[in-house]
Amino acid sequence: MISVILVGTGNVAQNLFQAFSRVNGVDVKQVIGRNKDHLDFASATTKIETDLEKLLPADVYILAISDDAISLVSNKINRLKGLIVHTSGGTSLETISNHKRIGVFYPLQTFTKGKIISFENIPICIEANSTEDLEILRKLGESLSSKVVNITSEQRKILHVAAVYVNNFTNYMYSIGEDICIENEVDFNLLKPLIQETANKLNVLSPKEAQTGPAKRGDQRTVHSHLKILKNKHQRELYILLSDTIKSKYGKEL
Amino acid sequence: MISVILVGTGNVAQNLFQAFSRVNGVDVKQVIGRNKDHLDFASATTKIETDLEKLLPADVYILAISDDAISLVSNKINRLKGLIVHTSGGTSLETISNHKRIGVFYPLQTFTKGKIISFENIPICIEANSTEDLEILRKLGESLSSKVVNITSEQRKILHVAAVYVNNFTNYMYSIGEDICIENEVDFNLLKPLIQETANKLNVLSPKEAQTGPAKRGDQRTVHSHLKILKNKHQRELYILLSDTIKSKYGKEL
Repeated sequence: MISVILVGTGNVAQNLFQAFSRVNGVDVKQVIGRNKDHLDFASATTKIETDLEKLLPADVYILAISDDAISLVSNKINRLKGLIVHTSGGTSLETISNHKRIGVFYPLQTFTKGKIISFENIPICIEANSTEDLEILRKLGESLSSKVVNITSEQRKILHVAAVYVNNFTNYMYSIGEDICIENEVDFNLLKPLIQETANKLNVLSPKEAQTGPAKRGDQRTVHSHLKILKNKHQRELYILLSDTIKSKYGKEL
Repeated sequence: MISVILVGTGNVAQNLFQAFSRVNGVDVKQVIGRNKDHLDFASATTKIETDLEKLLPADVYILAISDDAISLVSNKINRLKGLIVHTSGGTSLETISNHKRIGVFYPLQTFTKGKIISFENIPICIEANSTEDLEILRKLGESLSSKVVNITSEQRKILHVAAVYVNNFTNYMYSIGEDICIENEVDFNLLKPLIQETANKLNVLSPKEAQTGPAKRGDQRTVHSHLKILKNKHQRELYILLSDTIKSKYGKEL
């Protein structure tokens, strides 16, 4: 049995809490958060606490908190016998090096408030400063997911940048699609099956193989007709930049 | 029973053929394509033909061909009694106005070679120049999908522009994510569950609500650390433009 203390009350903390609660071999002994009201999700089944100085003894302490807070909170915690880890893609292992046994337990996924998702297929990227602790994190990860991988701080940073494109920037593409629909009184819901299939396609094709559209085809007539429709400066600027980049990327290969 | 003749052998034609073959009430009488070898998908169960002058009589003729070819092929077809439609998002109804009874039957989806998908949830956008023919297209659409909608040429153009963002440009974001992984020898597959969940999120949140990331948070430290990693000029240019745009969009609202 691995005993765990969760520090944090956000989407990652809540999703981890729910996931650990459903598996054998892990005991979430305590959940810590600054605001007592935000600890409701855990209060029925485990101990809750607002004071970082009242941490119970445990095998692993998971800081599931915002990137900005990791260093601050880590420095507030003293004299731990257990292993302390953070869950951030963009934060190096060294950020918590005021502790002796440190690690990273990074579930590579986007979490939504109130939307509990399965960890079964979520890659859990682990790192630690000793092989023994890496083994503990592997066991902890494998209790939740079939995909636990050793990832260095450097590799995790790469994944985090790539994640900005495939998650944040992709969502922004959806957002512009929605804006265009709203501005022109067309139902954005009509595009949702297309959005879903665009993601599903990656099960059979690489993104490079899956690329389609007027820019890829070098279809200037359609590009121009689209630019006539787009009135918003940012939408136009982005359309032009992306079309030019796609065109030059694929044009070279034609 | 609605009799249908399919003109085309690409992904849309093949997917429509498979879908119509599985439903009652629609009889695909003939499939036409320039190249006999490309008609293999249909030859076992219906008549195939390479000569446009040998079209059989039918209720509906569906031009499931590339945008560029629609006008050309439409002009090659003479004296039709039936209704002729195209399947293109970016092409107006008038493009086939050399015929008397015209329409559009646009399945708003991306189709992949060799990947047959269900039409059940695909929005089918229909348009015709008479209410009687619109009714025929509605019946035809409803044989495949639970989502058949009347969409004008103008609205379809809007959907098509929005589709470029949520499909073509989104896939390009995936593509950059893959490039970054390949350049740095990190496994792109680790990002696939994130890509899937980014799309799934739209079932519970609007894209505007779902936006996350360093740019949205105004987290300049992370933005700068990402720019240090990105060496490719296009990747950097895009990262900066998108981050600035997201920041200014959400910054105003903070």
